[in-house]
Amino acid sequence: MASVANLPEITNDELARVDAWWRANNYLTVGQIYLMENALLREPLAAEHIKPRLLGHWGTSPGLSFEFAHLQRLVRLTGQQAIFITGPGHGGPAIVAGSYLEGSYTECFPKVTQDAEGLRKLFRQFSAPGGIPSHASVTTPGSIHEGGELGYALIHAFGAVMDNPDLLALCVVGDGEAETGPLEGSWKGISFINPARDGAVLPILHLNENKIAGPTVLGRKPDEEVHKLFEGHGYRVIEVRVADGDDPETLQAAHRDFAAAIADAHSQILEIQAAARGGDWDAVRPQWPMIIFRHPKGWTGPHEVDGTQVEGTWRAHQVPLAGVKDDAEHLAILEGWLKSYRPEELFDANGAPSEIVTSNNPSGELRVSANPHANGGLLTQDLDLPDFRELAVDVPSPAQERSESTRKLGEFMKGIYERNPHNFRLFCPDETNSNRLGAVFDVTDRAFMEQTHQPQDGKISRDGRVMEVLSEHNCHGWLEGYTLTGRHGLFATYESFAMVSASQTVQHGKWLDEANGLDWRADIPSLNILLTSTCWRNDHNGFSHQGPGLIQNVLTQRGEVARVYLPPDANSLLSVADHAFRSRNYLNVIVIDKQPQPQWMTMDEAIKHCTAGAGIWGWAGNEDGHGEPDIVLACAGDVVTMETVAAAEILKQRLPGLKTRVVNVVDLMTLIRPKDHPHGMDETFFSELFTTSKDVVFAFHGYPGAIHQLVHGRPDADRFRVRGFIEEGTTTTPFDMVVRNRVSRYHLVMDAINNAKITPPGASELKAWCQAQLERHESYIVEHLEDMPEVSQWKFGYQQSVDGAGNAEADTEGAKA
Amino acid sequence: MASVANLPEITNDELARVDAWWRANNYLTVGQIYLMENALLREPLAAEHIKPRLLGHWGTSPGLSFEFAHLQRLVRLTGQQAIFITGPGHGGPAIVAGSYLEGSYTECFPKVTQDAEGLRKLFRQFSAPGGIPSHASVTTPGSIHEGGELGYALIHAFGAVMDNPDLLALCVVGDGEAETGPLEGSWKGISFINPARDGAVLPILHLNENKIAGPTVLGRKPDEEVHKLFEGHGYRVIEVRVADGDDPETLQAAHRDFAAAIADAHSQILEIQAAARGGDWDAVRPQWPMIIFRHPKGWTGPHEVDGTQVEGTWRAHQVPLAGVKDDAEHLAILEGWLKSYRPEELFDANGAPSEIVTSNNPSGELRVSANPHANGGLLTQDLDLPDFRELAVDVPSPAQERSESTRKLGEFMKGIYERNPHNFRLFCPDETNSNRLGAVFDVTDRAFMEQTHQPQDGKISRDGRVMEVLSEHNCHGWLEGYTLTGRHGLFATYESFAMVSASQTVQHGKWLDEANGLDWRADIPSLNILLTSTCWRNDHNGFSHQGPGLIQNVLTQRGEVARVYLPPDANSLLSVADHAFRSRNYLNVIVIDKQPQPQWMTMDEAIKHCTAGAGIWGWAGNEDGHGEPDIVLACAGDVVTMETVAAAEILKQRLPGLKTRVVNVVDLMTLIRPKDHPHGMDETFFSELFTTSKDVVFAFHGYPGAIHQLVHGRPDADRFRVRGFIEEGTTTTPFDMVVRNRVSRYHLVMDAINNAKITPPGASELKAWCQAQLERHESYIVEHLEDMPEVSQWKFGYQQSVDGAGNAEADTEGAKA
Repeated sequence: MASVANLPEITNDELARVDAWWRANNYLTVGQIYLMENALLREPLAAEHIKPRLLGHWGTSPGLSFEFAHLQRLVRLTGQQAIFITGPGHGGPAIVAGSYLEGSYTECFPKVTQDAEGLRKLFRQFSAPGGIPSHASVTTPGSIHEGGELGYALIHAFGAVMDNPDLLALCVVGDGEAETGPLEGSWKGISFINPARDGAVLPILHLNENKIAGPTVLGRKPDEEVHKLFEGHGYRVIEVRVADGDDPETLQAAHRDFAAAIADAHSQILEIQAAARGGDWDAVRPQWPMIIFRHPKGWTGPHEVDGTQVEGTWRAHQVPLAGVKDDAEHLAILEGWLKSYRPEELFDANGAPSEIVTSNNPSGELRVSANPHANGGLLTQDLDLPDFRELAVDVPSPAQERSESTRKLGEFMKGIYERNPHNFRLFCPDETNSNRLGAVFDVTDRAFMEQTHQPQDGKISRDGRVMEVLSEHNCHGWLEGYTLTGRHGLFATYESFAMVSASQTVQHGKWLDEANGLDWRADIPSLNILLTSTCWRNDHNGFSHQGPGLIQNVLTQRGEVARVYLPPDANSLLSVADHAFRSRNYLNVIVIDKQPQPQWMTMDEAIKHCTAGAGIWGWAGNEDGHGEPDIVLACAGDVVTMETVAAAEILKQRLPGLKTRVVNVVDLMTLIRPKDHPHGMDETFFSELFTTSKDVVFAFHGYPGAIHQLVHGRPDADRFRVRGFIEEGTTTTPFDMVVRNRVSRYHLVMDAINNAKITPPGASELKAWCQAQLERHESYIVEHLEDMPEVSQWKFGYQQSVDGAGNAEADTEGAKA
Repeated sequence: MASVANLPEITNDELARVDAWWRANNYLTVGQIYLMENALLREPLAAEHIKPRLLGHWGTSPGLSFEFAHLQRLVRLTGQQAIFITGPGHGGPAIVAGSYLEGSYTECFPKVTQDAEGLRKLFRQFSAPGGIPSHASVTTPGSIHEGGELGYALIHAFGAVMDNPDLLALCVVGDGEAETGPLEGSWKGISFINPARDGAVLPILHLNENKIAGPTVLGRKPDEEVHKLFEGHGYRVIEVRVADGDDPETLQAAHRDFAAAIADAHSQILEIQAAARGGDWDAVRPQWPMIIFRHPKGWTGPHEVDGTQVEGTWRAHQVPLAGVKDDAEHLAILEGWLKSYRPEELFDANGAPSEIVTSNNPSGELRVSANPHANGGLLTQDLDLPDFRELAVDVPSPAQERSESTRKLGEFMKGIYERNPHNFRLFCPDETNSNRLGAVFDVTDRAFMEQTHQPQDGKISRDGRVMEVLSEHNCHGWLEGYTLTGRHGLFATYESFAMVSASQTVQHGKWLDEANGLDWRADIPSLNILLTSTCWRNDHNGFSHQGPGLIQNVLTQRGEVARVYLPPDANSLLSVADHAFRSRNYLNVIVIDKQPQPQWMTMDEAIKHCTAGAGIWGWAGNEDGHGEPDIVLACAGDVVTMETVAAAEILKQRLPGLKTRVVNVVDLMTLIRPKDHPHGMDETFFSELFTTSKDVVFAFHGYPGAIHQLVHGRPDADRFRVRGFIEEGTTTTPFDMVVRNRVSRYHLVMDAINNAKITPPGASELKAWCQAQLERHESYIVEHLEDMPEVSQWKFGYQQSVDGAGNAEADTEGAKA
């Protein structure tokens, strides 16, 4: 940081460069919206030069390119590492034009050359079939942010600068986007940014007063309220208000004012950082600067069309001039508009940007659209991972030990924090301890930049690197920003509340997917999501906390991206986590509860099992080793695995004539056909596990329909009888949950008997016995609401759930191999 | 409103009542967490009186009951209609206790009587199997808000008071919840509340500084910033700060201060409303009051335990005293704590609340927990619906007309607005016009309370009743609040961005589900969601706008609640919408695009088709009328229906030897077995449509897995070959979208040939022809990116998509009956 200078006052020469670059960008933006020929306007504009369908969004673009141009100057004159995050939804053409003018667009897309033919391609690809969308996106060099779904611009910016002390993220927030909940919830990012070790976010509120069809809330609030709002969030507000009029003096004044504002903000950031890094600060959150930039929507575009004001109104949002092909007057306005930027000064004879334009570009990797932080894979370093095998739970035989599996993950992450002090973070909405991941607090604290002087404050400090904020949106999006800039992490959340940020999960999956198709985008660390505190064991929280919905949304993502793991115990969780932390470009969703649970596999067994993704648990069934079983009991998910093993144990003991096989699935995507997912097991392995014709009673952690769709197309898929969560939830015991959702051991035993093609002696008696157990359970629950149960009957897990039904025969002991 | 009085200064007598009620509530709250016997503490507290497992959340409860008690006094002395919305997550016991003390709990749950035995039940059911959760919920009388998933308290409050001029929603916002994005985005609700015709929300920021495991952001921000933040949102801030200490003088001062604050806030609300209703106001948003209530977490609980401070810290969040059963000292502290409330004054000999306590209750329907607005079905009036048949699109024969179907829905809603000026609202994130619903603006405006004086402002005013805010969270949640208080509406959104509020959809489904099980909860209007601007036609927006994910989440809801409709044209949309607006207690999701699309059915046909939910389109296939077809072409969703009909037409013309049947499905839930969903068609009807053994090529609007799971368990479900959206998206034409996702007419024709059990002459030639069409399309796209396509080839819909492949043979004309 020592090399970063302050930004001097803007000279006339500098102003001319910035203005030329801005004009060039605006010209290219208008060109993308309107032109299919005559890109350089070297002949009079005619109807045949106009695109057949006019698509795109002018309104926000000139403001964006103005900000971009001034950021370039900042970078050029100060050496500041900076990325540009485009919040406003449809400013794509301006950002693409920026990358084109900086040369990075041509580097990424060599066909779009810096000449007349390249310009023609640039214009034609915009909002066209097979082309590019009208918002900044994964295809936009220099972008780490998809501008389609609004709300996450600042969140991504804050994630990007964490542990990136030299980075400035200039983040433009549209006043439309500013109405969304996630965006409003993200201003508080500064309460978690430590100037001593993190970079800085400079938010610019892009206040053009209008969205698609009307005014914005912030656009029409009294000025004083707008200032108070951001001062209330903790910012020092710098306002730039552009005067009416597009005459040169007014525009020059706008440049001077904005240059002064960005210089002011930047110097303040440098001061804050210098003080913190020099130790001369009082350890509470500084007042970071932010800029309110009031300017007309559709700035420099047609002020009036057909007698109606357009510039400065919502009418400038998309295409301000319609019917240009058929309306000579509109065509003339368009020509005048394009010429107002004086393209002859901006492009040379070949159509390349002229020297006055390119002289505003920073050079090399400092170009705003070429900064490697915005192509984070270029900077990604592998995590230095501790050997997860050393954390193995000792499992002398299956189900002998019980432990809280996620505690082991906490210990693993403790080791990761120790070895990777600048490269890894855990993000969790106020639940790190609740989710049993608290071992990380042995080596770091929660990050917090507000006052932490109270005596009760523990494990919370400005230096902490565990990110706890009661906002799934912030947690998820910060991790996105962190991984998009090349670092690693995990988002841990209550399973049901993963739905709060489901749309972010879906959109990030789409990002990864599209990035896979761009060879210039380097691989980035996967986005890892731990779903814990699951539907099966949320006893005192009840129905609102019981929802395994996110799996439904991840299943539909493309196979190149989506991964869902359901490790049933600690060792398999460690093996899966190790894999997830090493992987790139995936959405890894890992589902496991936090409560004490039986441990099934030694570490060696777990590694082998997880590597295959699924396998037969020979010890749990009673096949005789040759021929096929009469029934397959399959399971995926910790609690239902316990029920499945217990069901197999009951069958072993009480119906030995029925040959059962237990199959456990860890990697859910192995069930899909290999043509639909790279993890899909081949047909031979699938048949080895599930046979080709025997019925499969499948106990699943989530909604049964998930398995139905995964096995579709597999041999005789109709034979899969799936049980899972069927939205039967309430405040109750874990065992009652499996009974209510009909996935208890007794239900599984009855299913096995009903679906096996043989009926051994004793089958109907065993069904009757199961039915009796369920009735006993039912009366037990009713009875105990009146007459409080004993402590032993309140315990979680295998033991308890057996006790809960008053049935000791199928206890843990019996399940041992 | 004329009858509502101002709240006088609190007298000593009043203070004694409020305080007694508060003490009683706190006593019951502690009792719920700890006691299983000795509810009235009439014998010395012993270990056997303590619950075996201590669950629940003390921390937030005493503040909540304090606020509740003062709201009661306000209602009692002023006649104000009021409901209480409990934002803080786990304050359930305080709110349940409030309802119990008001008598409404016993009315709803007669077993929980107002005597010693009832108290025992009240205590035992809390956080116990088969009992109630630890947050205010659907089972809590007086609640319209589920406190499980945080973030929506204020949103629900604003929705509740819209068009409810006499209602005050006192909404407590926890400082934990205040960190969520949706909550931060909801303060702006006042920018949409018109004091002349809407009621008022009085937010109380419940600032106890702590969440589960540490401090909150607002709790540790400088006071000045907190004030500025809410002033910036537009509120006048009234702060009450409770002094340290639980001595009587301190507590009395707290009562006096809070009583004064609530009187101040209430009188200000009355003034604002009186001015607006008298016409004496300047038509911009008033500064509504809000209260910041700073008080210790776990107030009046144990101040210190084992030498560590608990009261006023995060340690008070859940159970402040652990191990009470085994620790005599803790047991003694608990006893002292309970006795500090002086239960002997609070309950009579039978255990009923004493007169001093009940004297703080309002009476009858004014009781806070018995206000009918919080049981909205009691107040629900049927909509006066115009006859949708009169809006019928004329359909002389299938696919002859093309129109934007959602425009008709706009016209329908225009009629609804006209006939129901206080009972219906449309909620939409800034897209009403974009979604072609703009006819509503013929009769009303967008609602907006900020300045609307600009010349370009049209269709936006303080009197408007279309709710546009760029926030799916607010739109969805306002509609929830509106329907939970008994009114009707529709939330219209871009399909992919419905995922932003997916968690609200899921949680509201759970609410409806649970309400179905409570006979005292009256039926409320359904929550209607229109998904439009769908994945198939988001040509210039690209991949981020292409996601039919919400269907995945609605399918997993219980059958009693979840409904998904895919009307393929305007008349069927009108029929479905009419049904949705008449229905109660459902989540109705309606999926249809906004672009011009072929119209298939006359109104009579549409009504018949929608009533059945699915049916054979005889004119589209070429069965000979007896026997079964060789192949069934099924479809659900507008665009894929068009492709299916086109595929059938190609087969008719080019492979007449193959007998095809076209089945269209409008009500997706008819596919499920009737045992799993009330709409599930019986097996006879299912077989009549789909046969029992012929292959079905199913073209689905959403992800194929949705159909796989729906038909699971139907006869030979493996024969369903489903095509749908497979995450192949980009900026491209509608026809290219169906090609990329392999659900084009050509793909469907090839599927039909591949899966039919006969191979008529010409089959392989037709497959080759289809393949050639797809190749032509591919080269067409590549070619036209270089050489811009003509206008005619950019059109949407049936015609265009045929042109787009250069294939005129299967055009609209050919598809006519």
